[in-house]
Amino acid sequence: MSQLLLLSAVRAGAGGRALRGSCSLRAARALHGSSSRGSQGRSLLMAAGSAVVAGLAAGYSRFQRAEMAPRSLPPVSPQGELERRCEGFMAPPVTGLQELQANRADMKTQMELLIMETQAEVCRALAAADGGATFIIDSWHRTEGGGGVSCVLQDGNVFEKAGVNVSVVHGYLSEESILQMKSRGKNLKTKNGKLPFCAMGVSSVIHPKNPHVPTIHFNYRYFEIEEEDGNKQWWFGGGTDLTPTYLNKQDVVHFHQTLKDACDKHGAGYYPQFKKWCDDYFFIKHRGERRGVGGIFFDDLDSPSKEEVFKFVESCAKAVVPCYIPIVEKHKNDSFSPEDKLWQQLRRGRYVEFNLVYDRGTKFGLATPGSRIESILMSLPLTARWEYMHSPPPDSKEAEILNVLREPKDWVQ
Amino acid sequence: MSQLLLLSAVRAGAGGRALRGSCSLRAARALHGSSSRGSQGRSLLMAAGSAVVAGLAAGYSRFQRAEMAPRSLPPVSPQGELERRCEGFMAPPVTGLQELQANRADMKTQMELLIMETQAEVCRALAAADGGATFIIDSWHRTEGGGGVSCVLQDGNVFEKAGVNVSVVHGYLSEESILQMKSRGKNLKTKNGKLPFCAMGVSSVIHPKNPHVPTIHFNYRYFEIEEEDGNKQWWFGGGTDLTPTYLNKQDVVHFHQTLKDACDKHGAGYYPQFKKWCDDYFFIKHRGERRGVGGIFFDDLDSPSKEEVFKFVESCAKAVVPCYIPIVEKHKNDSFSPEDKLWQQLRRGRYVEFNLVYDRGTKFGLATPGSRIESILMSLPLTARWEYMHSPPPDSKEAEILNVLREPKDWVQ
Repeated sequence: MSQLLLLSAVRAGAGGRALRGSCSLRAARALHGSSSRGSQGRSLLMAAGSAVVAGLAAGYSRFQRAEMAPRSLPPVSPQGELERRCEGFMAPPVTGLQELQANRADMKTQMELLIMETQAEVCRALAAADGGATFIIDSWHRTEGGGGVSCVLQDGNVFEKAGVNVSVVHGYLSEESILQMKSRGKNLKTKNGKLPFCAMGVSSVIHPKNPHVPTIHFNYRYFEIEEEDGNKQWWFGGGTDLTPTYLNKQDVVHFHQTLKDACDKHGAGYYPQFKKWCDDYFFIKHRGERRGVGGIFFDDLDSPSKEEVFKFVESCAKAVVPCYIPIVEKHKNDSFSPEDKLWQQLRRGRYVEFNLVYDRGTKFGLATPGSRIESILMSLPLTARWEYMHSPPPDSKEAEILNVLREPKDWVQ
Repeated sequence: MSQLLLLSAVRAGAGGRALRGSCSLRAARALHGSSSRGSQGRSLLMAAGSAVVAGLAAGYSRFQRAEMAPRSLPPVSPQGELERRCEGFMAPPVTGLQELQANRADMKTQMELLIMETQAEVCRALAAADGGATFIIDSWHRTEGGGGVSCVLQDGNVFEKAGVNVSVVHGYLSEESILQMKSRGKNLKTKNGKLPFCAMGVSSVIHPKNPHVPTIHFNYRYFEIEEEDGNKQWWFGGGTDLTPTYLNKQDVVHFHQTLKDACDKHGAGYYPQFKKWCDDYFFIKHRGERRGVGGIFFDDLDSPSKEEVFKFVESCAKAVVPCYIPIVEKHKNDSFSPEDKLWQQLRRGRYVEFNLVYDRGTKFGLATPGSRIESILMSLPLTARWEYMHSPPPDSKEAEILNVLREPKDWVQ
């Protein structure tokens, strides 16, 4: 836990800067306490899904805040491989260590460790690229079952607003969720109208300051449902997509190539199928534009086997840092004009439009009582702009990206 | 037409400022040409409803742009009272003069003249209060029937973004509209599944620069539907509401008192009923906050008689300038801090959330093909901001307004 300094949450007023409050080591103790940690200790560690990640609402009763200090690699602990792995996380995992250990081979355990690890990897890479800002870490508990860890960086050197959320939630699916799943073709046999479920995921949106550094979004999730007859349905979903202010073909090719390489290891059809799905999903219908230059997007992936799909998802999650950070490093010191910044702000407006009007996770989260709104709306940019009838000249660099958003291209073969 | 300089629409690039193109007097000629104006001439003048106003989508095939020059009162025209009245409008009315003249006593004519007049009154009052900026005027045509006049001022001395839209649309109701109307209790007998309708309204959102000048929104509309048996259903809807960044009780009392005075002339129950309706409608459910300090809101008003409801709506429309402009004049030169501006930007973020997530007109407009998106989204502020976990200190002036947004108060008896 050397990299974590857990703090209680105190916020200043209109200035909106976090004040650092008194130190709390409860969560740290709960992680390192071994067999003595009972159900009460565990509840402190339970962290629930942001509705964005899992399409599920999450009420929260307690949360703790931490600031990430510069990472120093933790010493190898004598307490075993699992504990050593957890020490690298941004916060204790949502499920208690004992339970994770007892169910080491279960897919839920494997996925929880993967999403916690992805969160930590991405946060560290972002903090290193930023060179100044630190992440605020909220570990929070969902009354209905589960919890979450939200990591947010605001007003850094490079990043305007960067959020990386983990959520692990369980309980019974809401009627709305059941209807939504059935509407997309799932055949679900309920128990007295109820369906026990477990859902977990990592979800992130990174908005940089420099208009030449694109925004990235990614989200990887796992779902399990237990039907009336005890049959367990499971599937994975996720994706990574890029939203540049201006088109830089080299960057877009690098981004797509990195994702394609991750996909190709697991199936030749994955990249073309999930690239198209991404272009179709991130469509701002009322503008006739995609939100960005795409990437990959998939849902309901349940074949050929749990292990094989997990390996594919793992490859995608591991591709986030290499597909994005080189673009950040390349452009973070690029000079830009006030006009570049203005165009970025107008594009941020479109980002807000997509997220509030179309994004299924956001819409569902907002509509469901008890949602943790701050985690859901963490995806919104720090600032955005709307001008009446803004239309760039046909040969401008603004029109160049608009053309790509209107007619998606194939970037790699 | 002395106050109108009609221009073709040309926009500069990322800077987003309007370029003035070559002069077109087609619309002006169409207004002043008398009997020679045929159906082709008329179509130029037809202007269609913003979906915000009428809850109806509006495709547009042509539009013209005009800048309002300082007003000089037009000379009394020998062509009659109706033409003289139209000369005061921001643009020619949507329906041709001849048709208006022929149906002088029809409620559709009376309402179209009222909304055009309201648009002009409000635009002139805003331009005078601003002291610098001029309105960009777009007269546009809806392929499916009708058209609209959008007046937008951006980056003025006082106003950041101010839009006043008129729309007059007719045709057949979409299935979605029929379902929506039935769902709120309307009993409608369709003709082969079709329902001819006419809808018109004026809709406006004014976002000032100074955080001590509140945002205002108003919208007054009239609806007619012809059922299978020839029976005509009609109703009025509308409202005016205020969204301050900080609470100034005197201003809020003045605003509500002016609206109450307008209501009280027509029915003692109107103000309390429509004040509550307003508080209930402008509710950002996921935040547990109202968008602002309310005002009045009503819909489906169809008694005691067409004429009496029209008179009530007219009083409300005439109350817009006196309920708002004195507040603008009082505060437009108030000093403010960067913290005040930041809080204003965070509140603008909430405004965006309400409009994109909840506002029925916006949602419906965005979902309907052929909508004139720029008129629908004209209601969004020029800029907005979202900070993760922003929470003002309990005794701050930011918390003072939040308390009122969380628990609406009665401002006048």
